[in-house]
Amino acid sequence: MAPRWKGKTAEEPMSVIVSKLQTSLIESNAQGLLSGCVVLLEALPEQTKLLYRACIGRPVITAENDKQWHQLSFEEALYLCSVLKCIKVAGENKCAKSDEELWHYMVAKRVGFPVMFKAYSHLRRKNWVVRAGSQYGVDFVAYRYHPAFVHSEYAVLALPDEDGDVENARLKVWSDYHCTLRLCGSVAKTLLVLHICRNGEDVVSLSSLEHYNVEERIVTRWNPEASRENQTMIVKK
Amino acid sequence: MAPRWKGKTAEEPMSVIVSKLQTSLIESNAQGLLSGCVVLLEALPEQTKLLYRACIGRPVITAENDKQWHQLSFEEALYLCSVLKCIKVAGENKCAKSDEELWHYMVAKRVGFPVMFKAYSHLRRKNWVVRAGSQYGVDFVAYRYHPAFVHSEYAVLALPDEDGDVENARLKVWSDYHCTLRLCGSVAKTLLVLHICRNGEDVVSLSSLEHYNVEERIVTRWNPEASRENQTMIVKK
Repeated sequence: MAPRWKGKTAEEPMSVIVSKLQTSLIESNAQGLLSGCVVLLEALPEQTKLLYRACIGRPVITAENDKQWHQLSFEEALYLCSVLKCIKVAGENKCAKSDEELWHYMVAKRVGFPVMFKAYSHLRRKNWVVRAGSQYGVDFVAYRYHPAFVHSEYAVLALPDEDGDVENARLKVWSDYHCTLRLCGSVAKTLLVLHICRNGEDVVSLSSLEHYNVEERIVTRWNPEASRENQTMIVKK
Repeated sequence: MAPRWKGKTAEEPMSVIVSKLQTSLIESNAQGLLSGCVVLLEALPEQTKLLYRACIGRPVITAENDKQWHQLSFEEALYLCSVLKCIKVAGENKCAKSDEELWHYMVAKRVGFPVMFKAYSHLRRKNWVVRAGSQYGVDFVAYRYHPAFVHSEYAVLALPDEDGDVENARLKVWSDYHCTLRLCGSVAKTLLVLHICRNGEDVVSLSSLEHYNVEERIVTRWNPEASRENQTMIVKK
């Protein structure tokens, strides 16, 4: 399926934009602040533009005119911190946390975070723009370019493998499949299921995530009418 | 929410139609045949009309012109058999099964059947027209009158209580809620969740179903904007 453009075309590849953001944040020694279930990041005007273009975080409206704060999700903050290595994140004591400390804080705060972070970072590493998918009843939506240019192509569900937390997983019953596929169809998205396989690793540390496998599966309805032999014959003639 | 009419209005209440069907089937000693996961029922022309008007079963196209066969779901067949007591159902040996024998056959054939049957019969007893809901990713859809007259008002999920088969239940995670509610909204249906509480009863017999409780819950999104105090004030002025 090709991206559905919104009438404008993107100028720069996402990898270039993210790379510029990374360089800029490293140069300014950017530091985020943990605040409940989000991370707040103060950004220079140039970084504000790059964060917008990379589609990471969302600006926070404050009384301070000269400073622009951004609210990052746990996935976004940990990705900037541990994968791009371009920010540090501090806790209540204003001291920067190590990647592992940050990881343990987030895992304790949010059920299922390891699976969500693995899925987020998996897609981001491939230069997909990843945003929250709750509007469509999925974990994420994935865009090929910035959402200003294209509609999201994929509705993404991140599911733990069999040994994981099956009790709370999605797509265990047919009615859930039907519901998700019908909704994806009505909003012109393809359902992408990321099966996160732990390979027997425990979720004890951030580094153990490296050993997780991600299986990508596209789920679509099979249309018997569209798959009949004589249909193919007609096309071939 | 009022029923959404399809331009025509229903003539007779559903209770009257079902009652006529019941009388007619009893008079003709109607007998269905178990066939895999459905029950086949041969009907007189008058019964064919009443089955259509009651929205029970669907006609089967056969080579026999003088006979009209109908395909009933397990829920429909057991409802006609054990609640309305107007048909008998025979197995492979052509002998009519008792209600309990039929029940055991159906429970063995379909996972989760007790919960589905309890939900189906609960709604049918209240004169709702109940059809399969897989098109909308739910267990049933419920119509106030025949689907020829109105659109279905409710998308119905039948869920076992906590002691039940939680592993395969719906609505265990937020993303499933979001997905189901978004879909229900887009097809103008209200989500009706029927929690089937076993009250400690085992599913050993059809008669044990009588002791099950059904809790009806409507699930809708709360819209903060529509619930603000000053909104009420404006309306009051």
